[in-house]
Amino acid sequence: MSTITADVAATLLEVRREVAELHAELPRNELVVWTAGNVSARVPGRDLLVIKPSGVSYDELTPETMVVTDLEGRLVEGERNPSSDTAAHAYVYANMPHVNGVVHTHSTYATAWAARGEAIPCVLTMMADEFGGPVPVGPFAIIGDDSIGRGIVATLADHRSPAVLMQNHGVFTVGRSARAAVKAAVLCEEVARTVHISRQLGEPIPIDQTHVDALYDRYQNAYGQH
Amino acid sequence: MSTITADVAATLLEVRREVAELHAELPRNELVVWTAGNVSARVPGRDLLVIKPSGVSYDELTPETMVVTDLEGRLVEGERNPSSDTAAHAYVYANMPHVNGVVHTHSTYATAWAARGEAIPCVLTMMADEFGGPVPVGPFAIIGDDSIGRGIVATLADHRSPAVLMQNHGVFTVGRSARAAVKAAVLCEEVARTVHISRQLGEPIPIDQTHVDALYDRYQNAYGQH
Amino acid sequence: MSTITADVAATLLEVRREVAELHAELPRNELVVWTAGNVSARVPGRDLLVIKPSGVSYDELTPETMVVTDLEGRLVEGERNPSSDTAAHAYVYANMPHVNGVVHTHSTYATAWAARGEAIPCVLTMMADEFGGPVPVGPFAIIGDDSIGRGIVATLADHRSPAVLMQNHGVFTVGRSARAAVKAAVLCEEVARTVHISRQLGEPIPIDQTHVDALYDRYQNAYGQH
Amino acid sequence: MSTITADVAATLLEVRREVAELHAELPRNELVVWTAGNVSARVPGRDLLVIKPSGVSYDELTPETMVVTDLEGRLVEGERNPSSDTAAHAYVYANMPHVNGVVHTHSTYATAWAARGEAIPCVLTMMADEFGGPVPVGPFAIIGDDSIGRGIVATLADHRSPAVLMQNHGVFTVGRSARAAVKAAVLCEEVARTVHISRQLGEPIPIDQTHVDALYDRYQNAYGQH
Repeated sequence: MSTITADVAATLLEVRREVAELHAELPRNELVVWTAGNVSARVPGRDLLVIKPSGVSYDELTPETMVVTDLEGRLVEGERNPSSDTAAHAYVYANMPHVNGVVHTHSTYATAWAARGEAIPCVLTMMADEFGGPVPVGPFAIIGDDSIGRGIVATLADHRSPAVLMQNHGVFTVGRSARAAVKAAVLCEEVARTVHISRQLGEPIPIDQTHVDALYDRYQNAYGQH
Repeated sequence: MSTITADVAATLLEVRREVAELHAELPRNELVVWTAGNVSARVPGRDLLVIKPSGVSYDELTPETMVVTDLEGRLVEGERNPSSDTAAHAYVYANMPHVNGVVHTHSTYATAWAARGEAIPCVLTMMADEFGGPVPVGPFAIIGDDSIGRGIVATLADHRSPAVLMQNHGVFTVGRSARAAVKAAVLCEEVARTVHISRQLGEPIPIDQTHVDALYDRYQNAYGQH
Repeated sequence: MSTITADVAATLLEVRREVAELHAELPRNELVVWTAGNVSARVPGRDLLVIKPSGVSYDELTPETMVVTDLEGRLVEGERNPSSDTAAHAYVYANMPHVNGVVHTHSTYATAWAARGEAIPCVLTMMADEFGGPVPVGPFAIIGDDSIGRGIVATLADHRSPAVLMQNHGVFTVGRSARAAVKAAVLCEEVARTVHISRQLGEPIPIDQTHVDALYDRYQNAYGQH
Repeated sequence: MSTITADVAATLLEVRREVAELHAELPRNELVVWTAGNVSARVPGRDLLVIKPSGVSYDELTPETMVVTDLEGRLVEGERNPSSDTAAHAYVYANMPHVNGVVHTHSTYATAWAARGEAIPCVLTMMADEFGGPVPVGPFAIIGDDSIGRGIVATLADHRSPAVLMQNHGVFTVGRSARAAVKAAVLCEEVARTVHISRQLGEPIPIDQTHVDALYDRYQNAYGQH
């Protein structure tokens, strides 16, 4: 695992670029303050991931500053410490083979739901499209071992949603690509905000499960530039 | 319908430019996240419309990437799929001859009212000016046939408002021009936000219908650079 | 009044520049959407004012596009119609000789208080500093005659506050200079927002009148670069 | 105290640069409007501090415009009056020897808690990390003597938190460096906002004290690029 050939180095450079660029979407979409959020991507065909270094500001993020770890979160390449959330990202890649991108933020409205330990109900057509139902809540888990990763994987296994609200903590999203995980993080905050505001003055109208299913199916299979 | 003469091509280029430029107003006025919103314009004198392609980010929108469809939403010109909301836009143009621009967004506060299926009451002079009364709610309608378009047209027929809140979904606005429809979308979100905030701490004071009528009449007939 | 000498023309150019530049503070401080807000300044030593033209976007505002009216709101110089709020500005200058700048906005939180017809209580030291007490509410008044102007002047006569919330409408602020009126508009929205948010979860603690008086006196007489 | 050697002048220039640059973080993180917020830093090895001049806009702040005072707030170097909050900053440096940076803002959500005189409960893991418990409330204190400074120092002495909400007023934060104090100000507003929003729709779940302690210990000792 620790030897990197020239071939892998070219792939790594590309993934470093992608991950560095996607980090710019976090402040741009107002999902983070200071250094509190991170994006990672799986290195195609390798048991490696690329992630943000710890405690570094978004302005300083270049492809070169990104770090590479194995799927137990151990540093493989890079001059800085990996994000303190690396163990959670690594656990997801090790246990969800179809996932190639992971994002973690403390985005305000999603974290507000997480602090109450309350799932976001599916009352918007755009939620049905992207999440296929409610955004679920995962357990309280403390950093330092693989309990956050286990909580993410166990919760997502029971839902269509690519996003999970970790109790008292924040949001993790997954995707078939790092870009898809970033999109899920952006939309998760937007639905968290919209449903919150809607509920401040009454109860949003539920959407029938048959409609949720139809919307989810169409969006996942027919939307965009296929 | 499928043959485009040089004459029409010149007009189309102009409309493509206008629609591409107006899309920039959506993120600028914080009405959209990611790719979730679109503007269209009727091509003057033709049963054609120009609209955003599906699933493309606002940064990539140029006159060239805009697509042209007929009033049943079928692609006439362009290399990409039209927005998945095209059928709703097309239905509006086919059934509201005085409408030359349509905008669709999921702007946060307007969508929060839509999720409760609740009209925005007319308690601000700027609402009387622009909307001439409450912003009404249209039915829950699922994407895939003309039910969204029918819901928009039927609801707007009963109101002065150029904006309709589609239940659990978002906002559609119309205008004599695409720019007027964008203005209605911006003001709809602003009144949705202001009235929401006002109601959080009590009941806003209603405006007498005679005052609403007087304000609407003046604004529609005497305002601006005539 | 209608003849403008070269001497006055130089002064006018300076005031046009100041008013054009100050308009940029309205979108920068998120006090306005679209074209809904305006700044004016008295022309020193003349019964004239400079104000924004009607229905023109903030991006197009240059010194040249500003218009000059007399204190009854009649156009004296400029190629465009003056703002439809000009009569209210003019009435203030005609009746409050110490006022040299007026600002009108529909800023969100201030307008939310205005829609309920509720004054903003003085529960922040920065409110005591700038407003010397609550921000008062003026009457519902319809555009078209001098009733808005009269409402502003009558309400401000009874308060230290340079800001008044016009019921169901928005905010007017005044100042010894146009810049001071813009500052009052910015701070009025900020205290409207902060006190609103504070009251959402309970009752803010009142500040003793003796402390309000002491803070107001110090800020008005000792603050800044004297 | 009033004579400044060439050696100290070089150090002062560096501190002026740091303080000027850090002021840009206040509007960038939306912690301030107009001129209402300030950052200071202790001059290493001297009983001096560098702070913003009074009533000057953030756009005009350069290293040269910063002013230097002694630890009783008396002007030592600079052409402008020091911030009217200088006495409070100076009192903190004089009484908290490990503090090298102080920030004061009226950031919206933190000030909303301060207006109710209510501490922010520790219900987010990022609060446990940075604040090690609740963000406490200090007394109502009026500007003009050292009562604000005494209130800050007395309140912080009883808490791990580097932030204190001064009743009806705003926030003061401290740090081992000016940058650390700015970070605390940014995070204080973020947790004030997130916990506020969470509580709007119910009660956030408390975090066990043992978990708070573990998170605080890890973050203070193991986080970042050590």
